[in-house]
Amino acid sequence: MPPPPGDPLGASGPAVLAFGGNALLPDAFHPEEQEPRAHELARIVRVLLDRSPGLVLVHGNGPQVGMILLRVEAARGRLPSEPLDVLVSETQGSIGYLLTRTLRNALVEHAPPIEVACVLTQVVVDPADPAFATPTKPIGPAYSDDVAATLRDQRGWRMVHEDGRGWRRVVPSPEPRSVVELGSIYEAARAGHVVVAGGGGGIPVRRDAAGELVGVEAVIDKDRTASMLAIALRAHRFVVLTGVPHVSLDYATPDERRVERLSSGEAQRLVDEGVFPAGSMGPKVEAAARFAFEVRRPALITDTASLEDALDGRAGTRIDP
Amino acid sequence: MPPPPGDPLGASGPAVLAFGGNALLPDAFHPEEQEPRAHELARIVRVLLDRSPGLVLVHGNGPQVGMILLRVEAARGRLPSEPLDVLVSETQGSIGYLLTRTLRNALVEHAPPIEVACVLTQVVVDPADPAFATPTKPIGPAYSDDVAATLRDQRGWRMVHEDGRGWRRVVPSPEPRSVVELGSIYEAARAGHVVVAGGGGGIPVRRDAAGELVGVEAVIDKDRTASMLAIALRAHRFVVLTGVPHVSLDYATPDERRVERLSSGEAQRLVDEGVFPAGSMGPKVEAAARFAFEVRRPALITDTASLEDALDGRAGTRIDP
Repeated sequence: MPPPPGDPLGASGPAVLAFGGNALLPDAFHPEEQEPRAHELARIVRVLLDRSPGLVLVHGNGPQVGMILLRVEAARGRLPSEPLDVLVSETQGSIGYLLTRTLRNALVEHAPPIEVACVLTQVVVDPADPAFATPTKPIGPAYSDDVAATLRDQRGWRMVHEDGRGWRRVVPSPEPRSVVELGSIYEAARAGHVVVAGGGGGIPVRRDAAGELVGVEAVIDKDRTASMLAIALRAHRFVVLTGVPHVSLDYATPDERRVERLSSGEAQRLVDEGVFPAGSMGPKVEAAARFAFEVRRPALITDTASLEDALDGRAGTRIDP
Repeated sequence: MPPPPGDPLGASGPAVLAFGGNALLPDAFHPEEQEPRAHELARIVRVLLDRSPGLVLVHGNGPQVGMILLRVEAARGRLPSEPLDVLVSETQGSIGYLLTRTLRNALVEHAPPIEVACVLTQVVVDPADPAFATPTKPIGPAYSDDVAATLRDQRGWRMVHEDGRGWRRVVPSPEPRSVVELGSIYEAARAGHVVVAGGGGGIPVRRDAAGELVGVEAVIDKDRTASMLAIALRAHRFVVLTGVPHVSLDYATPDERRVERLSSGEAQRLVDEGVFPAGSMGPKVEAAARFAFEVRRPALITDTASLEDALDGRAGTRIDP
């Protein structure tokens, strides 16, 4: 069952940790690099579990979905294709396996023993979400001008041009509205387990007129899904891991400076003003601000190397309620 | 936590239902056929839940893994390949999604509400299992004589010739020894949920000298894994769904006759004598006999159309303790 409002777990709910698919697989052509990176994440998990029991991990899947799309493309015309919801479910399987295996290994000597499990997660979106009218999320390989034109005509794909890469398909990235498996995730987290859930932002589904779940051709931002999960679970802590130690103003300029703390209101205002890049730091700051505002607890944005210092207030960016 | 011996749940444990990947996808080139077949399975699930709460579903994945292997082959040399454990994990994702979505839809008006979840499942095998010396399980596409010879030389694959098809890769099919996620599966089943677990027989792993989990190039028979899960969970009922309404003697001959009931001892003897085809009805009868012997409750082998009659003793084959 989902947590009732005012649930006593609230005071000691799980931590929720979000991190990108490229934290595991920076180069999809070298899958062997995933294992040592998963070990580094397992170290982070131990650090968080030492501070409070119960942890929900929400991973991204960009490079992993990209690789499956390349395979599907390689067999185009000879083998059936697969819609995006199914592709996301496959990456929940493969990344969930990598994480649960590696985390079990990292926790094998932990006393008391810690259960680790991956719950496949469907996330409901609203078909009326404006994102469906304006697809913005690039996925899969880049194409030449000719191929892109053909794909636009034959498959109705929306394409955008990326400098130096070529044309890429863009798909809708609607807001997550609810997590179908919230009850199972809640039960496992309440029991103190480590739960891998909402991978890739969740398998996108909608409810039809009869209330039945139907797959949707979209991808959901994993930071938004993680924030929604953290709010629904009344998480004790929400950490967004990224590739840099903290949020910066005037990033990559001579004036770059660390943002140490922001209130959720200030953070949302900076996001609305477009201070942070859309599709990059913007959604992370927004996800953290929503959590801080709703749950009245601080959220943290940092990288793996700085996490321990950030937990003690010496690094990272903290978004306060 | 796994169930302690003599656990009181024993008297009212979940049902465990095993069925093949081709029950969902008889023709991997027509994935659209999966949806109506999943609906038929959902009907079966309602029948079982009406008789007792809690259900664990163990699905096969033959055609689904075959399709991914075809895609991997189509991109051979240009994209990295994936080991078998990862391929199985991808099918746990995609088939688990299909099943949990369809089952939620079938149970949407059920009162009280029933939680449905898929738990990614690793299954430990023994590296000393004799199956590793004698691979027997064919997977993936069939190859011509020339290609098969190249694959044997370049990749060290074992190949077998199938009449009318060509050469196919064979991989080890070791015995399942334990289920890594048993605790999570047990907790969910005890709460009365429907749990999809052990898909494709489970993601094959072994423990290294340090006790850490390592992926294995093998596939595990899903009926064996289902039987082991049913025993570990002290299941109330174990049903093996197959393509025929019951076990037969002298199958597909003029003397064919239904096997109505067998004791576990008789069943095992017939398996040992090779009365049933290996890789087909043999493993199902053996899996049912092991459950009946260990848990002292009958197991059932039947098809979807006959299940209700079989539960009332009017169809199917029943293996008694």
